[in-house]
Amino acid sequence: MEDRILKLGLVGAGRIGRVHAEHLQRHLAGAALVIVADAHEAVARDCAARLQIPEATADYRRVTDHPDVDAVLICSPTDTHLEVILAAAAAGKHIFCEKPIDSDLGRIDRALAAVRQAQVVFQVGFNRRFDANFRRVRRAVVDGEIGTPHQLHLISRDPAPPPLSYIRQSGGIFTDMTIHDFDMARFLVGDEVVRLYATGAALVDPKIGEAGDIDTATILLEFAQGAVGVIENSRRAVYGYDQRVEVFGSGGSARIDNNYPNTAILSGAKMVRRDLPLNFFMERYLSSYLLEMEQFVEAARRGGPSPLSGEEGRIPVVMAIAARKSWELKRPVTLAEIERS
Amino acid sequence: MEDRILKLGLVGAGRIGRVHAEHLQRHLAGAALVIVADAHEAVARDCAARLQIPEATADYRRVTDHPDVDAVLICSPTDTHLEVILAAAAAGKHIFCEKPIDSDLGRIDRALAAVRQAQVVFQVGFNRRFDANFRRVRRAVVDGEIGTPHQLHLISRDPAPPPLSYIRQSGGIFTDMTIHDFDMARFLVGDEVVRLYATGAALVDPKIGEAGDIDTATILLEFAQGAVGVIENSRRAVYGYDQRVEVFGSGGSARIDNNYPNTAILSGAKMVRRDLPLNFFMERYLSSYLLEMEQFVEAARRGGPSPLSGEEGRIPVVMAIAARKSWELKRPVTLAEIERS
Amino acid sequence: MEDRILKLGLVGAGRIGRVHAEHLQRHLAGAALVIVADAHEAVARDCAARLQIPEATADYRRVTDHPDVDAVLICSPTDTHLEVILAAAAAGKHIFCEKPIDSDLGRIDRALAAVRQAQVVFQVGFNRRFDANFRRVRRAVVDGEIGTPHQLHLISRDPAPPPLSYIRQSGGIFTDMTIHDFDMARFLVGDEVVRLYATGAALVDPKIGEAGDIDTATILLEFAQGAVGVIENSRRAVYGYDQRVEVFGSGGSARIDNNYPNTAILSGAKMVRRDLPLNFFMERYLSSYLLEMEQFVEAARRGGPSPLSGEEGRIPVVMAIAARKSWELKRPVTLAEIERS
Amino acid sequence: MEDRILKLGLVGAGRIGRVHAEHLQRHLAGAALVIVADAHEAVARDCAARLQIPEATADYRRVTDHPDVDAVLICSPTDTHLEVILAAAAAGKHIFCEKPIDSDLGRIDRALAAVRQAQVVFQVGFNRRFDANFRRVRRAVVDGEIGTPHQLHLISRDPAPPPLSYIRQSGGIFTDMTIHDFDMARFLVGDEVVRLYATGAALVDPKIGEAGDIDTATILLEFAQGAVGVIENSRRAVYGYDQRVEVFGSGGSARIDNNYPNTAILSGAKMVRRDLPLNFFMERYLSSYLLEMEQFVEAARRGGPSPLSGEEGRIPVVMAIAARKSWELKRPVTLAEIERS
Repeated sequence: MEDRILKLGLVGAGRIGRVHAEHLQRHLAGAALVIVADAHEAVARDCAARLQIPEATADYRRVTDHPDVDAVLICSPTDTHLEVILAAAAAGKHIFCEKPIDSDLGRIDRALAAVRQAQVVFQVGFNRRFDANFRRVRRAVVDGEIGTPHQLHLISRDPAPPPLSYIRQSGGIFTDMTIHDFDMARFLVGDEVVRLYATGAALVDPKIGEAGDIDTATILLEFAQGAVGVIENSRRAVYGYDQRVEVFGSGGSARIDNNYPNTAILSGAKMVRRDLPLNFFMERYLSSYLLEMEQFVEAARRGGPSPLSGEEGRIPVVMAIAARKSWELKRPVTLAEIERS
Repeated sequence: MEDRILKLGLVGAGRIGRVHAEHLQRHLAGAALVIVADAHEAVARDCAARLQIPEATADYRRVTDHPDVDAVLICSPTDTHLEVILAAAAAGKHIFCEKPIDSDLGRIDRALAAVRQAQVVFQVGFNRRFDANFRRVRRAVVDGEIGTPHQLHLISRDPAPPPLSYIRQSGGIFTDMTIHDFDMARFLVGDEVVRLYATGAALVDPKIGEAGDIDTATILLEFAQGAVGVIENSRRAVYGYDQRVEVFGSGGSARIDNNYPNTAILSGAKMVRRDLPLNFFMERYLSSYLLEMEQFVEAARRGGPSPLSGEEGRIPVVMAIAARKSWELKRPVTLAEIERS
Repeated sequence: MEDRILKLGLVGAGRIGRVHAEHLQRHLAGAALVIVADAHEAVARDCAARLQIPEATADYRRVTDHPDVDAVLICSPTDTHLEVILAAAAAGKHIFCEKPIDSDLGRIDRALAAVRQAQVVFQVGFNRRFDANFRRVRRAVVDGEIGTPHQLHLISRDPAPPPLSYIRQSGGIFTDMTIHDFDMARFLVGDEVVRLYATGAALVDPKIGEAGDIDTATILLEFAQGAVGVIENSRRAVYGYDQRVEVFGSGGSARIDNNYPNTAILSGAKMVRRDLPLNFFMERYLSSYLLEMEQFVEAARRGGPSPLSGEEGRIPVVMAIAARKSWELKRPVTLAEIERS
Repeated sequence: MEDRILKLGLVGAGRIGRVHAEHLQRHLAGAALVIVADAHEAVARDCAARLQIPEATADYRRVTDHPDVDAVLICSPTDTHLEVILAAAAAGKHIFCEKPIDSDLGRIDRALAAVRQAQVVFQVGFNRRFDANFRRVRRAVVDGEIGTPHQLHLISRDPAPPPLSYIRQSGGIFTDMTIHDFDMARFLVGDEVVRLYATGAALVDPKIGEAGDIDTATILLEFAQGAVGVIENSRRAVYGYDQRVEVFGSGGSARIDNNYPNTAILSGAKMVRRDLPLNFFMERYLSSYLLEMEQFVEAARRGGPSPLSGEEGRIPVVMAIAARKSWELKRPVTLAEIERS
């Protein structure tokens, strides 16, 4: 199959679904969308019209059952992932699934069992693994440029909180936001977290606290080989999207700064200044979305392996559950505790 | 016409022509290529096939005479620009012309006279004006962030010299390479150069000297209002594509650094280091090519004005001729001298 | 007394004692050392000879009892601080005492009670409070430049571990090294830590582990007002002395980088690089030692207040004890627990 | 003589004289001032009192003739240098002379002839050669880190113009200010300038123009081996003392940034900013003054060689004269022209 075009179907034509669709239709020569589904049929039709996708539907089963479809992109709400995965796996389609697979470990395990049985390629959408900055830090670790990792420090802050309506159904900051950082922590250090301690509060907006969530969190991660990591999250960095990391090791450190819209430095009578970092995650991470889709298309055409398997995608969910428990109990929690419960 | 798609024809499907074609076909919703011409018909056909352009031809007249074509992109060799401009203007087509318009002032004047008579939109392809870094410096000047410009310093170095075969027919470093910097100097300072002094030698490769050219040049520019600028050119910066500028004024300075593939800083036992800047002009300036085409499409749909007129495109050619003369005579040369000769 | 020279006596002429002595004798016009004591009389004599100090002795009581001495600098080993403080306070001398005051809270309390009773000026030697970088961050917090602090991240790494002989009697990394960072955390955030969680291991050198200590530590600090801080310590950063901090708040962030011996950036065929940061704490913090002594001299001449009181100097010791306990018990520990025990 | 203290006499106790005196009395163990002269005897006496210099006088001859004096520091006004040099050389004293030696080449030649005849050590006070940043760039060139130098770019801007009274007697910007940069250009490239082209105007303050001088200058330097350099001068950079340089060569580039009072970066809702660079030359270059004096003391104790000879100190004066001529005639001027005239 490597010598022909990969045909895909999209389930969920919201913001992230449309980004993937645009990349597939405009930038990836070896792939083409043949159908798009969205619970709101008008949304599916609009997406199809804009991007020359032949078919549009409100029923995701028309995608998973479509005879021409080789692979399914799942970009629908998290609580629908499981049923679409089961249907796609049953139909022998390769699967790209947005993160998180699910918020419940039992449901994730059902999904992954189905994927294993169907022997299809399954890739989880942790796009930051495909970002040039994070990849460079990972390469520094893999190539031994900084020796054995001893300490990790990860900053992940959004420019502004999402609407309260979103917060109320998001599953909380650890599931919704920190989950990216949990994945990144494992990826960068190259080891598993065995225990974590999560702290946090609603410091940005008390209404977020009233909604049962927090907006500022600091989580300490203890890795199996002795490294310790720290994640700093905030729902609001007034200066823009703040995504930095540093890995410190026996042979040195690798750190990344934010991305800026330009390199200009202005020196005036009162200060030396530059413009704010990029403010919107889509702008900041655009090229990572393209690269993850390119790698999915390649993996699906080859029949695997996945660059980011379902098993890898499950672990950050365990970490998010542990973080929530740690925050509630105000004590360190092991990942083994979560698995046992 | 603003409410319908602009239809374009491309003349010249080489490297830069294909970049514009891709932008038009994939990224700019308000425009579409209907025909592509290249002296090598196979090149035209290949381009048409890759980018879904309906027609391909070896004869540029089929483009300029095409009844559906609203605007012509001229990306063929410099010595063919004049005849294509004359044909396109005669047919009432808007024109985007790669730089330089021509290397001969008399021929440029004929082209611009035809354009004026035809009252079409004419835009010259000095893409750096559309780069985020240079635009930010220009904005600093226009908005008064740095006061009145007093000094300009422009660094423009390529990662490696072009082949000698290219050098021999390029018209020399001032026409081929510095011409971008001449345009940028005027753009950033917002004033006209009245006199310049050009120095240079073949320090990178003596064969470039044997071919009658130089590979390293430093040019001092005297502006009408008293500002003085300096351009430093080299055909080879071993660390990559080096494109920096600083404007110093009565109220401060604005400077830009190079663009890098990532923001990673590595600290090791011997040094603190980062990866090299972007190495290839197409990668470095890709988004500027998209923006210049977007603005051309807008201008053509509106019927003008051009963001970068033919008159503006002529001046850097005058400066290149003056620089060559200054270098040969080893004395400052005024632009008025060139106009009179 | 503000209009005459402050006369001081030095107890302890080791490395840090000599630094203070040099500053007093060469740079601070309003102060002069009249006597120096060291348990090794030859060391005291050598110091006196080099810096024109009139008297030298092996007996610190000759300093505390000296009729001309207005203030005593205590730079002798930590376990001798208490008796010198008691003697100096009894004699009505102002006191500058190197950190930590003592490693035992009961002994610290005896010292501070004596100081209060004697109503002398007492200043603790946390020199980093007088460093230009840290002061700038503190000023950002105080002046409201970054709003209310929400998160603190403090990196403090030495270029190389001290000798094992030193480690064995140092009281452990939290007392010996992190104590500076505990003070700095409180200083920068402007709030008190109520609970902390300390992790760590001997990752740099297993012999440090065999000596009962660790060489790599990450400590999470929970402040009374809700901010959370993190300290990362290592006994060995191969790239030099690593001293950075970032405070993130509701209105922005303030961060500091390391100090470098020069500003040179070298771009070559393989990388862009710069020289390593300053490698030695004495070089890195030299000007902070001068400023703390200048402020002590001023405070002593005025009769107070101290810029860094004994009560402030006591808290980091409480934190160090809590950190040790947290590390041993592998759970968060409140500072109240330590006070009660 | 290397094993005993070097005894020095100071002529001229103005700002720079007092800096050298303080370094000698407080920081350089192998040297001591025994006498200070200043045309204003009160100034000499005040300096002597502050720094424990045994003798003070209004008559420089008491310094040059002093039987204990091994070396003379000449920090008096430029037009007095020659007579002090002649007297000191005649008395066999080593000489440190502030820059420039004189503004007249004939007088410089008389001074240097006397020095050669007396076989004393003679060092010129171009302090920037002893600055850590500039030295690092020089080392990059010498060690081959950037290959053969092709281009030099030197920025040298003051925070504010000196008083008009100073400008009127300074000899003009090229002699007063650019002379440092002329020396630095030769030092960094390691080659001689053969021709230069100087431009400039009074853009900062028209009164400077009325006084016959300019406040903004750009000078292009052509070196013997083919490298070309550019100097940008301004009497007023509103953001502080601006001292940067870049040498570009066949193997890369070395550049230096300004020095800042701290490393803090503040990110707020509108911009990312830092404090201004150091504003005062004495603060910016303080350590270079110490190092040049340390090296003079060493050279004088050894009996030579000088780290910065009189012959080296003469060349920047030739360049300043050539620059003035070039600016007046608006054409390039060779240094040979100046020597012949």
